[in-house]
Amino acid sequence: MRHVLSLVYKCSVFSKQVTVFSNHLRLSHSQQWGSNKLHRKIKIPNPFREIIMADPKIEEILAPLRANVKEQGDLVRKLKEEKAPEIDIKKAVAELKTRKKILEDKELSLAPAEDLFDRAKMEDLIKRRFFYDQSFAIYGGITGQFDFGPMGCALKSNMIHLWKKFFILQEQMLEVECSILTPEPVLKASGHVERFADLMTKDIKTGECFRLDHLIKGHLEKIKSDKNTKIELKAEIEDILIKLDGMNADEMSALMKRFEMKSPISGNDLTPPIEFNLMFNTQIGPSGLVKGFLRPETAQGIFVNFKRLLEFNQGRLPFAAAQIGNSFRNEISPRSGLLRVREFTMCEIEHFCDVKEHPKFESVKNTQMLLYSADNQEQGKPAELTTIGDAVSKGIVNNETLGYFMARIHMYMLAVGIDPKRLRFRQHMGNEMAHYACDCWDAECLSSYGWIECVGCADRSAYDLTQHTKATGIRLAAEKKLPAPKQIEVVEAIANKAAIGKAFKKDSQAINDTLATLDNAALEEMQKELDSNGEYTLITARGEFKLTPSLVNVKKTQKTIHVEEIIPSVIEPSFGVGRILYCILEHNFRMREGDEQRTYFSLPPTVAPMKCVVLPLSGNAEFQPFVRDLSQELITVDVSHKVDDSSGSIGRRYARTDELGVPYAVTVDFDTIKEPHTVTLRERDSMRQVRLPMADVPTVVRDLSNSKILWSDVEQKYPKFEQQETVKGTSV
Amino acid sequence: MRHVLSLVYKCSVFSKQVTVFSNHLRLSHSQQWGSNKLHRKIKIPNPFREIIMADPKIEEILAPLRANVKEQGDLVRKLKEEKAPEIDIKKAVAELKTRKKILEDKELSLAPAEDLFDRAKMEDLIKRRFFYDQSFAIYGGITGQFDFGPMGCALKSNMIHLWKKFFILQEQMLEVECSILTPEPVLKASGHVERFADLMTKDIKTGECFRLDHLIKGHLEKIKSDKNTKIELKAEIEDILIKLDGMNADEMSALMKRFEMKSPISGNDLTPPIEFNLMFNTQIGPSGLVKGFLRPETAQGIFVNFKRLLEFNQGRLPFAAAQIGNSFRNEISPRSGLLRVREFTMCEIEHFCDVKEHPKFESVKNTQMLLYSADNQEQGKPAELTTIGDAVSKGIVNNETLGYFMARIHMYMLAVGIDPKRLRFRQHMGNEMAHYACDCWDAECLSSYGWIECVGCADRSAYDLTQHTKATGIRLAAEKKLPAPKQIEVVEAIANKAAIGKAFKKDSQAINDTLATLDNAALEEMQKELDSNGEYTLITARGEFKLTPSLVNVKKTQKTIHVEEIIPSVIEPSFGVGRILYCILEHNFRMREGDEQRTYFSLPPTVAPMKCVVLPLSGNAEFQPFVRDLSQELITVDVSHKVDDSSGSIGRRYARTDELGVPYAVTVDFDTIKEPHTVTLRERDSMRQVRLPMADVPTVVRDLSNSKILWSDVEQKYPKFEQQETVKGTSV
Repeated sequence: MRHVLSLVYKCSVFSKQVTVFSNHLRLSHSQQWGSNKLHRKIKIPNPFREIIMADPKIEEILAPLRANVKEQGDLVRKLKEEKAPEIDIKKAVAELKTRKKILEDKELSLAPAEDLFDRAKMEDLIKRRFFYDQSFAIYGGITGQFDFGPMGCALKSNMIHLWKKFFILQEQMLEVECSILTPEPVLKASGHVERFADLMTKDIKTGECFRLDHLIKGHLEKIKSDKNTKIELKAEIEDILIKLDGMNADEMSALMKRFEMKSPISGNDLTPPIEFNLMFNTQIGPSGLVKGFLRPETAQGIFVNFKRLLEFNQGRLPFAAAQIGNSFRNEISPRSGLLRVREFTMCEIEHFCDVKEHPKFESVKNTQMLLYSADNQEQGKPAELTTIGDAVSKGIVNNETLGYFMARIHMYMLAVGIDPKRLRFRQHMGNEMAHYACDCWDAECLSSYGWIECVGCADRSAYDLTQHTKATGIRLAAEKKLPAPKQIEVVEAIANKAAIGKAFKKDSQAINDTLATLDNAALEEMQKELDSNGEYTLITARGEFKLTPSLVNVKKTQKTIHVEEIIPSVIEPSFGVGRILYCILEHNFRMREGDEQRTYFSLPPTVAPMKCVVLPLSGNAEFQPFVRDLSQELITVDVSHKVDDSSGSIGRRYARTDELGVPYAVTVDFDTIKEPHTVTLRERDSMRQVRLPMADVPTVVRDLSNSKILWSDVEQKYPKFEQQETVKGTSV
Repeated sequence: MRHVLSLVYKCSVFSKQVTVFSNHLRLSHSQQWGSNKLHRKIKIPNPFREIIMADPKIEEILAPLRANVKEQGDLVRKLKEEKAPEIDIKKAVAELKTRKKILEDKELSLAPAEDLFDRAKMEDLIKRRFFYDQSFAIYGGITGQFDFGPMGCALKSNMIHLWKKFFILQEQMLEVECSILTPEPVLKASGHVERFADLMTKDIKTGECFRLDHLIKGHLEKIKSDKNTKIELKAEIEDILIKLDGMNADEMSALMKRFEMKSPISGNDLTPPIEFNLMFNTQIGPSGLVKGFLRPETAQGIFVNFKRLLEFNQGRLPFAAAQIGNSFRNEISPRSGLLRVREFTMCEIEHFCDVKEHPKFESVKNTQMLLYSADNQEQGKPAELTTIGDAVSKGIVNNETLGYFMARIHMYMLAVGIDPKRLRFRQHMGNEMAHYACDCWDAECLSSYGWIECVGCADRSAYDLTQHTKATGIRLAAEKKLPAPKQIEVVEAIANKAAIGKAFKKDSQAINDTLATLDNAALEEMQKELDSNGEYTLITARGEFKLTPSLVNVKKTQKTIHVEEIIPSVIEPSFGVGRILYCILEHNFRMREGDEQRTYFSLPPTVAPMKCVVLPLSGNAEFQPFVRDLSQELITVDVSHKVDDSSGSIGRRYARTDELGVPYAVTVDFDTIKEPHTVTLRERDSMRQVRLPMADVPTVVRDLSNSKILWSDVEQKYPKFEQQETVKGTSV
């Protein structure tokens, strides 16, 4: 786990533990999909309201916890300033995190509840209407893999369609689609081969695997909760649990031995810690010699195509490339439904730039967002509602480009149906961030699993392009025209190749190559040595060689340059589609007032899986031609819909439509047959209906679905209709 | 190879060798992308014209070749009728295929050429403008893997968007998205683990791999072309080459030994034939115990979800499910650019039905298509232009549903830009088809590589659902209401479980289980034995057991049933997106008359990567606000576009636009600045221009791109504009 964090991929979006409300809930809900049989209801807290209108009574309770965090935050800062030993800082940070967690849990538990959320009920609906479900279930199923049924697939597809409009079209990005199978050298350069790993341990008899930190935590918590455990040991365990997140394999191994940990399932012995790389590996080609991995993120495909993309953009910066595609991670113990899976769709953007100002920042600067800065986290303060303009000008968000993307992410999340009250941007604290990143914010959504990282937005500086340049020798850089030509001094080694060849025979190539790569400092040093000692010892891959002034010289020349080479910085917004989709479902799950059995998804029309349902009031044959015509006309204007001519009552069929999250329903009834042909149109959330000419339906539904008109416009234009549902339909 | 064919997956679409015009061309063009340095021009034959208006002179030349095919076709039929030994049939079929190939090559070579096609020039354009290019090129590249750049990605995305409209929306299909990582048992049931393999051989020193049939062919052809080879040997080799396609591992191994084959590259010894499964394998989860594969097709994901989908469709047949996604095949030697790759996108449909009539067949029955029936192939006759209605009524195409999908595939192919003259539907011959399939047609596109299978359309009967039912014990079947209730006789074994338990102890479970699975015939047999001999020997997985009437009895009862269980048939259209994309590019590649350097793609506006380019006439600052406004307005109406304000002349920039396949270009010039603000609009293919109010541009371009209006409508409405390009712009 911490191996992943030590690199802090934006992928930490996907690999970090999700926060849960309490241990109590964790035990019942962190199970793999399908095993959760409890129908426990969860309060949906409203942290937003709490933050805006801080309740003095609540603040009174939280005050000591906030002070606790602040105290530790100050200590961490002090240790950093004093450049204290890394191990001390690590421990202090772990303690800080724990205190933050306690504060956050308390905040959530005290926040006034908006509504009751019943996850079991929602999961039942998701499975029953096949939004998604476990893959290969008829073969027993595989954990961490899900298949999207017609409704989930359409919802996902609409989310991606809107994403493309929001980013690729509106921001004029270059979309690419790169290979999933990736040869090893690429992922060595990116650091994934070495560091994209979790620690695990295996049951030595059954081979069952456990994520090591999970196992140790579970074991120690059990001891702690035992009545017979002495107070001193309990305190010590508490201390260990705090530090666990910062421990290495040896430290964890020592804990396993000391507490004699066995498999919690079989009671068998366990292996020492094993570092398990989370990438799926395979061989490309038949020889078995080309090792490859399924990509763990889509980003690397963009980086390795940088030169082609820069050329496509006619050599100019800034530009952004985007990619939508699947990535794969071989999680040790996938769980929490769609939140931790083995294959998932990402939408990633790499915005390459030389300056961090953004020409369109002005247009978003007034966007109000809930920001949870690193500073606030360290000081025990809550997240704050602020405009992105203020956040950038105060230096809370590092630069305009990062701020611009955060604002656009915010807008996108609201457009797809994320509840603004359950969306915040959390900044990575210094210790969470990779050494090369200069700022990183995660868009987190509040769900019944706690705050879930759904989008990462990081300023990765020039790290990735530099890594691939080092690995391939191909310079992934752009040229920037200088404001004015510049004189520079060029220092180079002038080798007497003939003489070197004669003197060193087969080693001469290595010598010449090495000479060509020496930087200015090395060249100055060489000149000094040649001048003072009459010789210089050159270190090459083939050994050391003594060179004399007759073999090599250093020459300084003046050169006028018009362009300079720069390796651009990268701002990387990275969206986890499955996680956002899950949060959309949670945020839009509703129960009808007074009828808890009647659940539905109040999805925004833009992303709703289908836009409308066409219903004949009954099986009467006279309705059929009208239903057929309506369906045909809806197809003509590209409105996805479904005909439900099954035998249930109209009320029962409306309820089914609601369950699918379909926003509108058109009903053909006896009045339709008369001229002028009219039908009723029903809106899902309000269940209100209007009566309108049949010919108007396709464009009205299309415009409603594209948010070109609102339901209130429709209600103003057409007469209200009250009959079917209110009179006969409500019994479901 | 033939291992694949023996199963005849529709996937044969992707695994079959592509036909090439001649060996000469094969040698130069069958290389992996990037290694083709030859600028050879290829005649584009027009088989369509040839077929429609059969030239008597050409027919005279072809007549003996046609007779040759017919003779062999008749022999194959005769052998089959006589139920001759399989080996004889196989040999006769191999000979038939060879004769067919000779005829086809001749046909193509004699067909009047429509145009010259220069593949090298097209590939240059594809790479230069980054439609697609080899993956990981900066790391040396991997064969058989390609990255799509902005233009290729947009083209592909538009093709898929149209596909979704054509099939999912218009046919009201259920779209799903299933996992790519597939556990072994699923692919065992489907037959892929056992039979999805090619034979190869390895260089014993370097480990280099060769596809065995390719290697033997190359080796023997070399001997054959040697002047010193005796005539008898040449004849024998010819015979071997014909039979090669039908040989098994032992026969090929014998050939390797007899002709002392070595690695053609190193001259080293080779291993005996190795069966190489084409699926990429990996382990799911950390234990290494769950073996998994990357799916070789998307279809299985639909089959394993059949029950959920049927339920979603409220238990009713017919319905179709569709899936768009990537599949993976570890080709031994990928080549021919996008035509044989290791990862590729498929669009697959599984239409589940109980009857083969199709309610919408009437609407497509007049569609004219070029059909190359199995019968015509066997008889040496050419493909025939016919309506799908005729083909079905004559029994050439097995049923309406299959015919309906073929017609819809045809329409889709034309909509995305496939040249109707280079599109045919070829029926699988009996020997190509899997035993369970009742009919199969491939949509093939003619390209410079020959006829390429781009879409398969197979009637797979109930095979797949039956296989998964067998493997899982879960009945993948639908219930169909009977027209009238039916009395049936139910025969079942009544076991005296207590007595069996006492008599057989731990074996009793196996005995009871086996008794429950016996079919009617077995039960009747058992009753007979029990009656006559007083005992019956039951064979179970745990051995044989003697049962007496005191232990088991057979009971017959009458039962009234209202529904019957049926395993639906499956009609499966399966699209290879990359192959279609490649053929679209070939079919739409153009050179400007009189300027061969000025190449472009004449892509239909619906699939063109971008719909228009906005160009300021020069770098004049006064143009900028107009360019910005236009771009903003185009975004508002969702028109993908690009601003090209680079410094090239307007003609050079038009040429670049053409290369990208962009159908329209809007130019802001000095007249734009004056009121009323007007701009020019240029059409790519005709290079003609009109002048129109700037405010009209967004909707005009949108409607042109959606095929709502035609360019001729625009030319009628707005005044012609002649200036920029004709006067100053043509020099590129």
